[in-house]
Amino acid sequence: CDDIISPTDPYLPYDGGGDAIPLQELPKRGSNYAMSNGGGVVSSSTHLLDLLEEPIPGVGTYDDFHTIDWVREKCKDRERHRKINSKKKESAWEFTKSLYDAWSGWLVVTLTGLASGALAGVIDIAADWMNDLKEGVCLSAMWFNHEQCCWGSNETTFAERDKCPQWNSWAELILGQAEGPGSYIMNYFMYTFWALSFAFLAVCLVKVFAPYACGSGIPEIKTILSGFIIRGYLGKWTLMIKTITLVLAVASGLSLGKEGPLVHVACCCGNIFSYLFPKYSKNEAKKREVLSAASAAGVSVAFGAPIGGVLFSLEEVSYYFPLKTLWRSFFAALVAAFVLRSINPFGNSRLVLFYVEYHTPWYLFELVPFILLGVFGGLWGAFFIRANIAWCRRRKSTRFGKYPVLEVITVAAITAIVAFPNPYTRQNTSELIKELFTDCGPLESSQLCQYRSQMNGTRAYSDVSSQPSTPGVYSAMWQLCLALIFKIVMTIFTFGLKVPSGLFIPSMAIGAIAGRIVGIAVEQLAYYHHDWFLFKEWCEVGADCITPGLYAMVGAAACLGGVTRMTVSLVVIVFELTGGLEYIVPLMAAVMTSKWVGDAFGREGIYEAHIRLNGYPFLDAKEEFTHTTLAREVMRPRRSDPPLAVLTQDDLTVEELQTIISETSYNGFPVIVSKESQRLVGFALRRDITIAIENARRKQEGIMLNSRVYFTQHAPTLPADSPRPLKLRSILDMSPFTVTDHTPMEIVVDIFRKLGLRQCLVTHNGRLLGIITKKDILRHMAQMANQDPESIMFN
Amino acid sequence: CDDIISPTDPYLPYDGGGDAIPLQELPKRGSNYAMSNGGGVVSSSTHLLDLLEEPIPGVGTYDDFHTIDWVREKCKDRERHRKINSKKKESAWEFTKSLYDAWSGWLVVTLTGLASGALAGVIDIAADWMNDLKEGVCLSAMWFNHEQCCWGSNETTFAERDKCPQWNSWAELILGQAEGPGSYIMNYFMYTFWALSFAFLAVCLVKVFAPYACGSGIPEIKTILSGFIIRGYLGKWTLMIKTITLVLAVASGLSLGKEGPLVHVACCCGNIFSYLFPKYSKNEAKKREVLSAASAAGVSVAFGAPIGGVLFSLEEVSYYFPLKTLWRSFFAALVAAFVLRSINPFGNSRLVLFYVEYHTPWYLFELVPFILLGVFGGLWGAFFIRANIAWCRRRKSTRFGKYPVLEVITVAAITAIVAFPNPYTRQNTSELIKELFTDCGPLESSQLCQYRSQMNGTRAYSDVSSQPSTPGVYSAMWQLCLALIFKIVMTIFTFGLKVPSGLFIPSMAIGAIAGRIVGIAVEQLAYYHHDWFLFKEWCEVGADCITPGLYAMVGAAACLGGVTRMTVSLVVIVFELTGGLEYIVPLMAAVMTSKWVGDAFGREGIYEAHIRLNGYPFLDAKEEFTHTTLAREVMRPRRSDPPLAVLTQDDLTVEELQTIISETSYNGFPVIVSKESQRLVGFALRRDITIAIENARRKQEGIMLNSRVYFTQHAPTLPADSPRPLKLRSILDMSPFTVTDHTPMEIVVDIFRKLGLRQCLVTHNGRLLGIITKKDILRHMAQMANQDPESIMFN
Repeated sequence: CDDIISPTDPYLPYDGGGDAIPLQELPKRGSNYAMSNGGGVVSSSTHLLDLLEEPIPGVGTYDDFHTIDWVREKCKDRERHRKINSKKKESAWEFTKSLYDAWSGWLVVTLTGLASGALAGVIDIAADWMNDLKEGVCLSAMWFNHEQCCWGSNETTFAERDKCPQWNSWAELILGQAEGPGSYIMNYFMYTFWALSFAFLAVCLVKVFAPYACGSGIPEIKTILSGFIIRGYLGKWTLMIKTITLVLAVASGLSLGKEGPLVHVACCCGNIFSYLFPKYSKNEAKKREVLSAASAAGVSVAFGAPIGGVLFSLEEVSYYFPLKTLWRSFFAALVAAFVLRSINPFGNSRLVLFYVEYHTPWYLFELVPFILLGVFGGLWGAFFIRANIAWCRRRKSTRFGKYPVLEVITVAAITAIVAFPNPYTRQNTSELIKELFTDCGPLESSQLCQYRSQMNGTRAYSDVSSQPSTPGVYSAMWQLCLALIFKIVMTIFTFGLKVPSGLFIPSMAIGAIAGRIVGIAVEQLAYYHHDWFLFKEWCEVGADCITPGLYAMVGAAACLGGVTRMTVSLVVIVFELTGGLEYIVPLMAAVMTSKWVGDAFGREGIYEAHIRLNGYPFLDAKEEFTHTTLAREVMRPRRSDPPLAVLTQDDLTVEELQTIISETSYNGFPVIVSKESQRLVGFALRRDITIAIENARRKQEGIMLNSRVYFTQHAPTLPADSPRPLKLRSILDMSPFTVTDHTPMEIVVDIFRKLGLRQCLVTHNGRLLGIITKKDILRHMAQMANQDPESIMFN
Repeated sequence: CDDIISPTDPYLPYDGGGDAIPLQELPKRGSNYAMSNGGGVVSSSTHLLDLLEEPIPGVGTYDDFHTIDWVREKCKDRERHRKINSKKKESAWEFTKSLYDAWSGWLVVTLTGLASGALAGVIDIAADWMNDLKEGVCLSAMWFNHEQCCWGSNETTFAERDKCPQWNSWAELILGQAEGPGSYIMNYFMYTFWALSFAFLAVCLVKVFAPYACGSGIPEIKTILSGFIIRGYLGKWTLMIKTITLVLAVASGLSLGKEGPLVHVACCCGNIFSYLFPKYSKNEAKKREVLSAASAAGVSVAFGAPIGGVLFSLEEVSYYFPLKTLWRSFFAALVAAFVLRSINPFGNSRLVLFYVEYHTPWYLFELVPFILLGVFGGLWGAFFIRANIAWCRRRKSTRFGKYPVLEVITVAAITAIVAFPNPYTRQNTSELIKELFTDCGPLESSQLCQYRSQMNGTRAYSDVSSQPSTPGVYSAMWQLCLALIFKIVMTIFTFGLKVPSGLFIPSMAIGAIAGRIVGIAVEQLAYYHHDWFLFKEWCEVGADCITPGLYAMVGAAACLGGVTRMTVSLVVIVFELTGGLEYIVPLMAAVMTSKWVGDAFGREGIYEAHIRLNGYPFLDAKEEFTHTTLAREVMRPRRSDPPLAVLTQDDLTVEELQTIISETSYNGFPVIVSKESQRLVGFALRRDITIAIENARRKQEGIMLNSRVYFTQHAPTLPADSPRPLKLRSILDMSPFTVTDHTPMEIVVDIFRKLGLRQCLVTHNGRLLGIITKKDILRHMAQMANQDPESIMFN
């Protein structure tokens, strides 16, 4: 799903001066405040100014695939807020409007939470039903899944709760027989048939209706939250198609999960609801606050972890995260969690399928296998990132990527054919994780717990542990090993397909399988060697000393940590699954080891790797800039370049100005006092200049091609016969950011990150020297990391 | 505890130009990088430069009560890191050193967590023991508290577990009788005697040994974390005395808690351990990362809420909170929690005394009383802040504040005398909260649950609810009302005394009392009117429908929220106390209501109010700057002031330079090209200039009073007979931050906050106009809020 985002109208201008500045509205910062406070330099209210004060359509918006200016957006919002506040006391209507405005933040996150929770519930139920459809159908009620079908039946015992006459496998239905090789082949065929149908339908829907609906969406959401515009990425079509195809993709049995796409779905909801509130729809910075909250809601419903969701949004996704957003994210996450719990998709009044409770503590010695699991997770993460990126790059660069439908069908077919014979790969991945996490209790019927099968169900809990294994466990171990290899291989080829695909569930499944294998191994070791000094003290015969399910959970966290490099949020998410403080130390040990091992092979997580693969302009807040370059080495123009295109404040004519604009493709121009002094006055955007000249020509008399243009407060003294001059001060940004040429780039990068700048002017001893844009910085960073600087694609 | 912090050496210079800049080391930013990369302007290695490169004692440190420069500190750290990294491969020793350096962050937070947890355990146990000492003594083992004393006894039944022969009240011990008015008076007297002794000891220790140990410490820690230096505030003496006096203060029965001071204690630990690691001890910015983690550990042990502690540090205390700090804070909080749990001070294997579990759900209708509790919490918070600040201001301004010992004794005496007769005020506040939070189960012996006393203990749980109340409950209600009034009054006068005093526990107690009263009222309402349409559906007779303990918890959260204006961290802390997602919605409703109601009366929380009262230079990240002033209106010099003291880059003599320095008290001077052009070159600090001239005089031949001083790359052309010139380029900060005079102050404030600046130069059209310091901004903000700008006291 990598090559899908490219500018529909590839606006990639020559990259000299202010190329990161799309054509748009004047940055009202300097000029506007001067007007409103009256103390500063007040722009005299010329005719032109009045015209510019009218809202011009399209002004204040950004072009697609461009970077937003956080400072300007925040100023716009404060200005709007001041306006509403000052009007508040005028009338009851204005007061109501101000109340609506003040509450709109809470309203929009509430709506987002409600919608995310509801959609997550629908997706869970539908995916469950369709997944069971691959195996059979409920004759008494078509719309029941396997479990619901057998609930109503009173002919089944608890032990055989999966088998009931109402539920018919396809072989039973078509061939009329439930056993035998013929029926196995029939079931095999129907399983593959449904898997292929779902996958085909999913990829076709994505391809035809909403190409943005593919993949996990998290790399793009990270980029959008960092201040980039991708139109339609969070739109209603994407939402609709992503919801439908997510169900299909999960049901098709591909090695993917729904957690990442759920974040995308929640962000779509947030974006759509923000259009109901002008405060958010008209301000890109404010809209991103809603999206931060929405991504928290997404993780909240994906894992049933509201606090973990908030920390995920804070740690992994968000860029600008003020405290107010923290609070609203928390609220959105809670609302979403409550809605999902009311829907109760899993019938266990829990938010997730794999909620677990353990009853035994862990022992210090067990940290050794936990840390080993962490090492495994880190290695898997590093390997996966390299392999997946290599494969995705291959898909992008060769003609192979031109047949996405064929690719999906092929992967789905291989997955289905290989998966069916092995019970651990045949079942839903979430259910597999649940089975692996669950401790073997007396009522457990899983094959993994068959060493307890010789006992009856009435024995006390602590008696059922640390028993010798039966052949059933050995065969289960073999099947798990095969499942592990299968999952590892398929996940590499699946993530990046043109269907919605999350990475959390497959990663967790791989970790859980590895963890469970290690857990059973340690358990058997403890059983057969309970007189070793290691086990002697705490692991007596018949006592409950090893919990293989805990190993599975630790392994899952380690693998997820290795792939995403999340830390706190991951531990909190898993903590919310178990609810016990006890198991945080093993989790932390494993997750930290996994992160360190993974970082040794490459510091990027999978999302950052995909961002770089796609060339998004994402300035990572986590990565430190450690080089010693100075601003003068990064700024444009370089030594060999033509000089910087500048405007002088009072000696250009309209014609000269138009020539400069038409001869360059820069999106903005520094304004200086004079060519000789090079002293900086301000910054003017191309679009504003064009609009202003256009307006003046139409509305102001006497503006000709040889009219003088001035950006100063007072008109320059002109010869008597010259035509009326044109004042452009109102479109001038009089507070451009500047740094000196000796400023170390680490400080410049810090300023860009923290203030969310798009461009910054460079001066030397008060004279203008050049300009640095966000793209220049990203290119410079790519260069310093020995990467291709041209890989940064967008503005 | 408000007036205690004042500069020991009151260095409060004239406040014109760069007064926020203490005399210190050169900001190596511009100059150093120029040297290291070789591409920029390389300072020729003069003799002077070599001398300056040597570490000069005292350089790089800050004066007491001065503001740090975050940008410079971070640059220093990166420089150090680069140095270590480049040396790493030279030898095994250097490699070990680099490893130690890389791990020192984890080491220091681990040590901090261990120490905080251990100290919290010691404080808990000691406070418990001393608290019980007021009532009696354990004859079998003096060092046992009441509960431990009776554990060993096998003569007591569960119902009378508080009474055992080993435990003797003072009356029993002295008078030999346990009942009767004489023994009551004896107990009363001994209670008051011990309370007064403890309080006297506490205030004397604080006064004599560590004046910084008083108060909660959170306002000062917030200020320190925002980048201010208060020497000794987090030192070993403060730690020692605060730990001891905290125990005494809690045991004295004053209306205070140990939660805030525990944060201070944890921060002291963090500060002390950071001295073991040069990475942290020599860098003020890095040290603050450790302090952020330490404050998380402090809250973690105070409430047994590791995640809540991290969020508290993030939401309430910290200023600069990179993701790495998040992770380390989490680790420190966990380590501290585990150590505390291993110590097990409460004997319940929980981290807090008032861990609760509820068994019944809540109903939608109950949101009404919960929101009412929120309103109460907000009103109480607003009232408390006003009353307490008024009282503290009175203490500061009148001679009344000169007798702190007398004040403490008086308050302690009143508290003890009024508290003793009422069982709810006599007991430890934490225990009171525990009792109020706890639901009435069949085994509950509290007077609050006496309406169940007619039943035997074997009845099923759901039968014991919604019973008519007995006179016992009514008398309990009366006592609770009296306790509420008593707590409200005493807390106002207690917070600010010269003893360690936290606000969390008293606030929670007030809320819990109010909540429990409301809860019992609603419960009785439901019992007597169970046929009302409101209760009809879900509140049948004998069914379990109202949980008064939950009301107490909601009330506690609301009151704490009203006082501190915390939101997410507060909800998460209380969530961690109950462990159930169910009760988050009531909590959120109450906390949000409380915050909104409180904000309607004044936006400041108690900590911000105390910061303002003390005039600390704290630039709050939460408070939005909404005014429309421009940088030119805030900068110095004002119109009536003398012009800005500047240095020209190449036409001053040593004598002229010395005159400028001696005639002004500014801590730094902008360097310009020439008086005529006013173009900015850089910024030089007074201290550096002094040191450089001193050094040159000593080490360089031919430097006289009429030697020319130059900041340029090459020496100016001088007459043939002039003495050798002095090059000062190496002490010049060539990348000072600048804004234009038209920049709105909201952007300037944003820059100061996000980058942690101390000063910023103001230019107009490339010419230098003035300077804005952090103090100027704080004064301007105070002025805009109609406060006295002179209340900002320190640099």
